[in-house]
Amino acid sequence: MKPPIGRDTRLCMSLSGRPGNAGSRLHNRLYELLGLDYVYKSFSTTDLPAAIGGIRALRIRGCAISMPFKEAVIPLVDRLEESARIIDSVNTIVNDVGVLTGYNTDFVAVRDLLERRIASPQPFLLRGSGGMAKAVAAALRDAGFDKGTIVARNEAAGRALAEQYGYAWQPALPDTGAPLLVNVTPLGMEGPDSEALAFPADFIAACDIAFDVVAQPVETPFVRAARAAGKAIISGGEVIVLQAVEQFALYTGIRPTPEQVRDATLFAHGPEVAASLEA
Amino acid sequence: MKPPIGRDTRLCMSLSGRPGNAGSRLHNRLYELLGLDYVYKSFSTTDLPAAIGGIRALRIRGCAISMPFKEAVIPLVDRLEESARIIDSVNTIVNDVGVLTGYNTDFVAVRDLLERRIASPQPFLLRGSGGMAKAVAAALRDAGFDKGTIVARNEAAGRALAEQYGYAWQPALPDTGAPLLVNVTPLGMEGPDSEALAFPADFIAACDIAFDVVAQPVETPFVRAARAAGKAIISGGEVIVLQAVEQFALYTGIRPTPEQVRDATLFAHGPEVAASLEA
Repeated sequence: MKPPIGRDTRLCMSLSGRPGNAGSRLHNRLYELLGLDYVYKSFSTTDLPAAIGGIRALRIRGCAISMPFKEAVIPLVDRLEESARIIDSVNTIVNDVGVLTGYNTDFVAVRDLLERRIASPQPFLLRGSGGMAKAVAAALRDAGFDKGTIVARNEAAGRALAEQYGYAWQPALPDTGAPLLVNVTPLGMEGPDSEALAFPADFIAACDIAFDVVAQPVETPFVRAARAAGKAIISGGEVIVLQAVEQFALYTGIRPTPEQVRDATLFAHGPEVAASLEA
Repeated sequence: MKPPIGRDTRLCMSLSGRPGNAGSRLHNRLYELLGLDYVYKSFSTTDLPAAIGGIRALRIRGCAISMPFKEAVIPLVDRLEESARIIDSVNTIVNDVGVLTGYNTDFVAVRDLLERRIASPQPFLLRGSGGMAKAVAAALRDAGFDKGTIVARNEAAGRALAEQYGYAWQPALPDTGAPLLVNVTPLGMEGPDSEALAFPADFIAACDIAFDVVAQPVETPFVRAARAAGKAIISGGEVIVLQAVEQFALYTGIRPTPEQVRDATLFAHGPEVAASLEA
């Protein structure tokens, strides 16, 4: 049982331009399951420095950082842990008695998924060049994937990302695919691109592993097609949950069991994302 | 039923040098009873300006201010409501979309108790000259009590307080009491003065109303003696609960019923304080 909220209760939070409810539900559910004296709530702000100053002054234990604050927050923390320094992007702040350290748990979660789910590094094709693409490319590099192509219409971002990690860059899809296909664009995401297939059908038929970071929905056209073709799948649902579990472990020092994570995921994200987690 | 904590949940909080649990328990219990999407937590800080900046930036709805911040917070808010301006002391901040207004609900609660529980203004004797004594003296004045004596060893503070409201000042107790006796010192409070009787037995025997702002415990020697003598009593338990209910109403716009207040008081402060509330 969680004790009632009081002076010893630790607050964790998130800051984003468009706060959601899933983080609050996931963390609060885990606190409940584990009987931890914590509470979690999402916030937005129009004054990032004052918000970060408040985290420090109020001894708020941890803060998830989402769009559009992931880069802007860098000069406001005291230290960058390696995961955040590598990709120049902070998605997590841990407050140790007033000293704020920036982490990037997207990087950590993606690297762990790559290492756990892919027996040996494969050549890959990665679509995208935004903030999350930086985390995924860095994780691929860190996990030993040394042969890959970044496909991105934005030449400056795509070329820079490719060069940083020793990958190739192309503005459009090549003629043939690769064993590992990675989508880090909004193709297939809820909204105008929801029907778009991130990779051509013949690429999917020829690949070994389909990795889609889109989490809303988990079952994108890309994931559905890969599943129908019997391919191995890493989904955005897994990334979103595992990066939150990394945050949870940083804030509380406790790593929940897979059963607890599944329960909290069901509560926070619903059955589709819960089903996407490794059995 | 309270909804799960999420992006629309409003946070209210307290800031004090030594945070307690009673405020969190009282407010959270009332949110639960009323099904309000709020959560309350107590905090401390070593950086008051950054903490107040954080309240503004994170759109924290309201904040109770306790010792030692009641005066220091004044230059950090945008406006002072009359209750705080009168006594130069803020115990409550309300955040209206980034505009912080300082209130003093101790003043409001004491004035309301005086008006509700004493049919007509009486001459009084008030012991004390600290921050709470300022709130009580101002409330007495505002409630029409125009004849009274402030008894305080601290000449500067006692004389200034008396002169501000047109009362007399004395450094020690006079020879005779008054119909209304008011204790705003730590006499009778848990700790070294717990056995001390705030007024002599013959003053208590001759008075009509005994008012003790000590809340820990509610049953001070002064209150016990007055009760034994059949006198009307206003206790510190009532002040502490009513000032919190005022805060609750400012933050949420909702005034809980006496039954809800009694339930939450029992949960937050225990049976003694709950029993001290008006039937």
